[in-house]
Amino acid sequence: MEASKKPVLYSYFRSSCSWRVRIALALKEIAYDQAPVNLVKDGGQQRSSEFQSVNPMQQVPALKIDGITLSQSLAIMEYLEETRPNPRILPQDPKKRAEVRMISDLIASGIQPLQNLAVLQQMGEKKLEWAQHCISRGFKALEQILQETAGRYCVGDEVSMADLCLAPQVYNAERYKVDLAPYPTIIRINKALLELKEFQTSHPSQQPDTPPELRA
Amino acid sequence: MEASKKPVLYSYFRSSCSWRVRIALALKEIAYDQAPVNLVKDGGQQRSSEFQSVNPMQQVPALKIDGITLSQSLAIMEYLEETRPNPRILPQDPKKRAEVRMISDLIASGIQPLQNLAVLQQMGEKKLEWAQHCISRGFKALEQILQETAGRYCVGDEVSMADLCLAPQVYNAERYKVDLAPYPTIIRINKALLELKEFQTSHPSQQPDTPPELRA
Repeated sequence: MEASKKPVLYSYFRSSCSWRVRIALALKEIAYDQAPVNLVKDGGQQRSSEFQSVNPMQQVPALKIDGITLSQSLAIMEYLEETRPNPRILPQDPKKRAEVRMISDLIASGIQPLQNLAVLQQMGEKKLEWAQHCISRGFKALEQILQETAGRYCVGDEVSMADLCLAPQVYNAERYKVDLAPYPTIIRINKALLELKEFQTSHPSQQPDTPPELRA
Repeated sequence: MEASKKPVLYSYFRSSCSWRVRIALALKEIAYDQAPVNLVKDGGQQRSSEFQSVNPMQQVPALKIDGITLSQSLAIMEYLEETRPNPRILPQDPKKRAEVRMISDLIASGIQPLQNLAVLQQMGEKKLEWAQHCISRGFKALEQILQETAGRYCVGDEVSMADLCLAPQVYNAERYKVDLAPYPTIIRINKALLELKEFQTSHPSQQPDTPPELRA
């Protein structure tokens, strides 16, 4: 049992899934060390045998915490919520919790995996078009859902796991030059989120492994 | 508020994500009506304006329950767990819960979305090869993780949400003729799961919309 040690986050500055967890750690004020894993250098450091023992899926993020090693960003966030509940990132009402998880899963299963590096590499020349298609399709649905659920943030006026998924996905949308004009609710919420210091300090432009030319 | 009405599950017999929820409903002995949504007929009934108001993502499953409409299978299962906790599909120990969610997310975000219909249609001639690649890659990681976590089932000896994701993904693997020999733990657990009546009655071969020629 190594519960007394500081958690270690295996992360890549530009990975949207890593950013989700960095926001959760910031909101909950959990001190941690970062172990950068460069997804492009050396053919992808996530493929090293060393990292494969951390996460057999060869993906970031992964978190060593309380003597266990977790992967999958939503599972990590749920664990943090259950063991470090303050401030909460899931509402107390079961129906609101369900809405938060529905939005989180829509992004984590319905958008992000379709526009990640491995799929895009298969798409060749259609790469950008495909990424834009997947993100737009998801955002169209999300905009419709958020018009029902949103207050200042994705579900009501409290920052939740859904917001921790939204901002990083908007960041990806901007990278792939998706036209965001049709999604005014998404734009508005994202703007409100980026005003929070926890979203700023965890931002891809501010990480230990951010290349100097991409620092904000 | 229509909490007193029987829940309605929008489902497609062969959708692995629908099957996950059918198992959860069966385990928790929740009576429900099925509203079949044929993903291939008429260019895909999920694209109808009627269904789009149920789930803007135009995907199954969706569940009308307690006066709300939920989509995303894991969010639905978490809601069922919080509102109908017996029998539980998440362990009590936070670390075990995290393992269950990690395995569930590995399948729901790391495998299934990459081999679903929309992506495969983009792959043209490489369709089968791509599906096999994605599933094999995920199963290789999963096998390694299960060797640490599994008892009779994915995490210890209790059926959990991870198992509700595993059996449907193995079903997909078999559809796409993935060689399962390298994954003895997955094979063993899947076999144990298919012995349970809740996995049998919810099986794709047993649904109201299963075509006669595919009935077991």
